[in-house]
Amino acid sequence: MKKITIFCDGKKWIVDKNLKTFSTHFGNIDIPEKIDGIEKLEFKGRSFYFYQPGISEFLLKIKRKTQIIYPKDVAVITFYSSLKETDNVIETGTGSGSLLIGIMSIVKKGKVITIERNEDFREVAVKNIENYFGKIPENLEFINGDVYDENFKIDIEEEWADKIFFDLPEPWKAKGLLKYLKKGGILVNYNPQIIQIKKFVEELDGFIDINVFELLERRWLVDEKRARPVDLMRGHTGFIMIGRKAK
Amino acid sequence: MKKITIFCDGKKWIVDKNLKTFSTHFGNIDIPEKIDGIEKLEFKGRSFYFYQPGISEFLLKIKRKTQIIYPKDVAVITFYSSLKETDNVIETGTGSGSLLIGIMSIVKKGKVITIERNEDFREVAVKNIENYFGKIPENLEFINGDVYDENFKIDIEEEWADKIFFDLPEPWKAKGLLKYLKKGGILVNYNPQIIQIKKFVEELDGFIDINVFELLERRWLVDEKRARPVDLMRGHTGFIMIGRKAK
Amino acid sequence: MKKITIFCDGKKWIVDKNLKTFSTHFGNIDIPEKIDGIEKLEFKGRSFYFYQPGISEFLLKIKRKTQIIYPKDVAVITFYSSLKETDNVIETGTGSGSLLIGIMSIVKKGKVITIERNEDFREVAVKNIENYFGKIPENLEFINGDVYDENFKIDIEEEWADKIFFDLPEPWKAKGLLKYLKKGGILVNYNPQIIQIKKFVEELDGFIDINVFELLERRWLVDEKRARPVDLMRGHTGFIMIGRKAK
Amino acid sequence: MKKITIFCDGKKWIVDKNLKTFSTHFGNIDIPEKIDGIEKLEFKGRSFYFYQPGISEFLLKIKRKTQIIYPKDVAVITFYSSLKETDNVIETGTGSGSLLIGIMSIVKKGKVITIERNEDFREVAVKNIENYFGKIPENLEFINGDVYDENFKIDIEEEWADKIFFDLPEPWKAKGLLKYLKKGGILVNYNPQIIQIKKFVEELDGFIDINVFELLERRWLVDEKRARPVDLMRGHTGFIMIGRKAK
Repeated sequence: MKKITIFCDGKKWIVDKNLKTFSTHFGNIDIPEKIDGIEKLEFKGRSFYFYQPGISEFLLKIKRKTQIIYPKDVAVITFYSSLKETDNVIETGTGSGSLLIGIMSIVKKGKVITIERNEDFREVAVKNIENYFGKIPENLEFINGDVYDENFKIDIEEEWADKIFFDLPEPWKAKGLLKYLKKGGILVNYNPQIIQIKKFVEELDGFIDINVFELLERRWLVDEKRARPVDLMRGHTGFIMIGRKAK
Repeated sequence: MKKITIFCDGKKWIVDKNLKTFSTHFGNIDIPEKIDGIEKLEFKGRSFYFYQPGISEFLLKIKRKTQIIYPKDVAVITFYSSLKETDNVIETGTGSGSLLIGIMSIVKKGKVITIERNEDFREVAVKNIENYFGKIPENLEFINGDVYDENFKIDIEEEWADKIFFDLPEPWKAKGLLKYLKKGGILVNYNPQIIQIKKFVEELDGFIDINVFELLERRWLVDEKRARPVDLMRGHTGFIMIGRKAK
Repeated sequence: MKKITIFCDGKKWIVDKNLKTFSTHFGNIDIPEKIDGIEKLEFKGRSFYFYQPGISEFLLKIKRKTQIIYPKDVAVITFYSSLKETDNVIETGTGSGSLLIGIMSIVKKGKVITIERNEDFREVAVKNIENYFGKIPENLEFINGDVYDENFKIDIEEEWADKIFFDLPEPWKAKGLLKYLKKGGILVNYNPQIIQIKKFVEELDGFIDINVFELLERRWLVDEKRARPVDLMRGHTGFIMIGRKAK
Repeated sequence: MKKITIFCDGKKWIVDKNLKTFSTHFGNIDIPEKIDGIEKLEFKGRSFYFYQPGISEFLLKIKRKTQIIYPKDVAVITFYSSLKETDNVIETGTGSGSLLIGIMSIVKKGKVITIERNEDFREVAVKNIENYFGKIPENLEFINGDVYDENFKIDIEEEWADKIFFDLPEPWKAKGLLKYLKKGGILVNYNPQIIQIKKFVEELDGFIDINVFELLERRWLVDEKRARPVDLMRGHTGFIMIGRKAK
């Protein structure tokens, strides 16, 4: 982890760990050299806290060139697909790497292949992965390629992957990848548009137990005086389809 | 894993792995002896599939003597708390063991202590854990005790736990446990009642970055003819509070 | 109003007003002859209340041969379309008459034309309207016809209607009716399927300020001990599109 | 109605009807003198539309010194309470008059009494009512008073009102008003805080069929390319309690 969270009065910043000082409009604050769990610093009457960011707060602050997959969706995608440390995984597109960080935090012994055709996105994802894990994990391979291309191939055997994750505008164009999924393996398809999900489900063959859902996260203001939902909520991120390869 | 999923025509059963046959109203079906990913059996014009259940489908079918924590909440509780394989964890109450299965699927090297005062619940949880993991994992300790009791103690050092999970009707009565949480550690408090969350937040001292939210999972019917949300949805499971110990 | 509500212990029945008795599993209860606002009757230790049903509770209990439009949607459809007592209105299909009862409760001086091709549906709607209003209001005309038929015509002038309400599986096939809508008039299109809404919006020409939304009603259990959402909620009824004719 | 809507490219303004011109960053546009349903004006390549605002769009743009009650809630409050043109009504507090406009658009023959202790709020509400109805309707009476005051009285008989509407921070302090409600009459209590609803329900005596709910309005982006919920939605306005006076 190359980052550190600074928390003060309900606000949060995620900054480089090797920064010496953090500038606020009250002046510059020295960042503690060593952080044992959490460090607190009083500065001009305010309390500043320093600690290693959790995965969900990290994901909300990653660099992005694309819409990211939100922590609630990363949590449920990895959990509902029963992602395991020994799984072999294919993910496409890499995007800004939000889901990939979630995957890599679980898959330690299996191998993960992530495919993206946009080099700018990949650079951002690489940076985000490095920031979170300190370096690119050895079991992660970035492939630069266009999964819509009929001739696109990965240098692995068929039925290699335990899980495949799609975050593609037109997922049906990448159906060729499904030969790499094991019989009994899980496919997750994420898309902001329900119509794209529908078109994909219509074209999907040989999968069972297909479920489509969306998750709404509703934050509440709770303190001594109040207990009520926050006025503005994120009303939509994406739809999630999960299915199991049957043949 | 001592269980197997049988899937046919959108319906699903989770049965003992060592069962030889499964009885349907069409007659008895032989369960395949060995399942390599997924097995398919044609029986009187229907396709039956057999495979190892995923964690979320398993949780929905566990034995229960209590309200369970639903998969969507288990997913987000473990993810938002950045639960890691090396974490030391305290959980109370054990209940039917739904969250505990989620915790044990991640924590492989740390130690997990789960506390429950109701022996019936514990028995059910033990059975569920055994069914999922094949046996009770060695890094899991069940404690029979009443965390509301002022004299309740665990035989560990203070600031031992990286994460503490509460699923208690009156969580404020278990505040004594918070001394076992590390500085910088994460506390999750789950409760079906927002007023219980509010009372707990009011009494909580020394925690920062307290967030309260609920998750709504909305299933959609998607097939060739339809793309619409399911008529009846689970409108409520529980509220989740997450905070970080600051001192 | 030909109906009466009987309420006891949180349960509710809507029965014919001229019934003399109401049979329960405790025995038969005499229904009061005259009800002044509300009447209460003690019967074997329970309190039974009798009163004229409100419109929303009536709608939930109407006879139905179709999916009904739910009270929340009737409320918002009539309100967001600024329906007035003097408006001229076209509605199709009549269905079970749920939206129609909402319309007729507001439109007292304008005229309402409702069109349905299914005679069974119309009979049910007629019965429901009679039950609610005591008789068919004089300003309401039922037309038996197929609005998908290109030759379908109503014997009114073009630009006659202030408001048009569609509840049709394939609303784009009824676009011919839109010539009857005044310039500046409001069109509401209700549909359980978002894809049908999309197709209609794509084909709609000459309308501005088109809004699409859905309403979720989340019931809460609130009493001395509890304040939490009800476990099971209706997760979906339909999508509502509203637009204004611009030319 | 003293206002007019101007619509252009998905944006909307509500301005004084007697304005001659409307200034945009393209220059000043002449507002048509007479508007027959809807008028269209081409101006520097854009289409501007002019028409009388609907009630829901008007409510979203009223002057406000308080949180307003949103159109979705006004729609359902008036509908679920079966508000009729002949009803006698008490409403408190008046606030900015949003719910009051909804009430007055239905109650034409009954009398409406609205009570507010804050004179600034009342002035704003009077202005909003005048803007919508052209003048203060003759069946509407504004009372300046504090309904929390034990000695507060209205110069009407007990059991005069068919409906009573509360929008008060501490509604239990205004229980004295409930003597003015008819037996069988409807009470609506609106509050952003569920805990205030709970406290009121606990203290409420002699009411049956008490329902508490909240409404979520989820807007969708629908056009040729897209069909998906809007990213940001209003996640909360208020909780609504409805009950019927039983004695």
